[in-house]
Amino acid sequence: MNHSSSEPDAETAEPLRYLSKDEVAAIESELLKDYRFGRQQLIEIWGHACAVAVTKAFPLGSLNKKQPTVLVVCGPNQNGSIGLVCARHLRIFEYEPTIFYPKRSTESLHQDFIVQCEKMDIPFLSYLPTEVQLINDAYNLVIDAILGPDADHTDVKEPYANILVTLKQIKIPMASVDVPSGWDMDEANTDGINPEVLISLTAPKKCAARFSGKHFLAGRFLPYDIQKKYELNLPEFPGTDCLIEL
Amino acid sequence: MNHSSSEPDAETAEPLRYLSKDEVAAIESELLKDYRFGRQQLIEIWGHACAVAVTKAFPLGSLNKKQPTVLVVCGPNQNGSIGLVCARHLRIFEYEPTIFYPKRSTESLHQDFIVQCEKMDIPFLSYLPTEVQLINDAYNLVIDAILGPDADHTDVKEPYANILVTLKQIKIPMASVDVPSGWDMDEANTDGINPEVLISLTAPKKCAARFSGKHFLAGRFLPYDIQKKYELNLPEFPGTDCLIEL
Repeated sequence: MNHSSSEPDAETAEPLRYLSKDEVAAIESELLKDYRFGRQQLIEIWGHACAVAVTKAFPLGSLNKKQPTVLVVCGPNQNGSIGLVCARHLRIFEYEPTIFYPKRSTESLHQDFIVQCEKMDIPFLSYLPTEVQLINDAYNLVIDAILGPDADHTDVKEPYANILVTLKQIKIPMASVDVPSGWDMDEANTDGINPEVLISLTAPKKCAARFSGKHFLAGRFLPYDIQKKYELNLPEFPGTDCLIEL
Repeated sequence: MNHSSSEPDAETAEPLRYLSKDEVAAIESELLKDYRFGRQQLIEIWGHACAVAVTKAFPLGSLNKKQPTVLVVCGPNQNGSIGLVCARHLRIFEYEPTIFYPKRSTESLHQDFIVQCEKMDIPFLSYLPTEVQLINDAYNLVIDAILGPDADHTDVKEPYANILVTLKQIKIPMASVDVPSGWDMDEANTDGINPEVLISLTAPKKCAARFSGKHFLAGRFLPYDIQKKYELNLPEFPGTDCLIEL
């Protein structure tokens, strides 16, 4: 193989790259336009991988509550749909997810994922209790699938700003999907929510570089040419696993 | 729980059901219309599960040839696209798939899956050698993703009839996706192709009831209500595995 300096081999010990918001957008645009991946397809891959990550971080046997309850908080766009798919697969893995999805998307892409959850008898909360003790008592963990890399995390709008105030106070563990909601994507967190688990999708984002919790890289499908072009230096996933703990 | 005779509990020892062609069509229609699953989503789930099944049946370390080559033969419709997705994931799992896809679909759904493979540098054969020794020498195994449950297996048209004549003569192992191409779906096989491995998707079909090779049930996403309604009595999948060997 010809190793030019512009194309580092993933097998060398080059460090994993942490992507800027612009790089994330460029990769996603390339996947959709050049590689002709579909949004439905990517959301399914990512949501499934998130559910598998949750089973690794919080195995059924490790949960404290009598029922394996999980609260999945979903935002209005793609990150929220990934949360919906995650909830559906968690149900298949015998967890008991409940979804809080305060602003439903009107896009049929996202609505289809809602129906899939509804028809799986996954309950939807009509509001999030502001009394955090109620959340601590009812659920083993919370999944933050609110704001993804495409969202503005520095100026969070309602109802999400208030939801983040609540989530900052909960005592049960939280897992964030791709980006902890409200964190500046390109910098380390200062005073946002504090997830125990971060599930980075495809490649980690800059804000995750100093994340000190359990960190998974999930979603194993990225074409080798994209991995090379963006010098991602992804680690080797074991066997057929769809994720790896970093 | 209330166990009525019309709703057997999957946990009892009721035998796995083998579905007729009409039942397969009814379930798929329900998934698409009532549950609002998308074809792209289902094909991704199934194709990925097929690739995982291939890694179980033919682990990289067990292959005889110097290169981990796999020939994936794809039909014109959904089964062919599942083959394309399978090939793509096999590439990610470090196999070297080659695709033979003699009649390309004009549907954009299927064309997107073609582009995804092309952009992953997976080679497409322009014709299938009629000299079977060339196939035996070049590949470790063949994946038959030609005709799915929606196809007419009793009156196979060209170019597939001729392809099946070739595949009947190969000496390397073959894995069929969902239904061995050319088998009558509702009856046991008499003189068709003879796959060593069958990857049943969602639920096995009647023709698989007396299949004597390695038999996988792959694709773990089916809503519980559908499992009950059609009395599928699916086995319990281990952990987060997307398949189980029957």
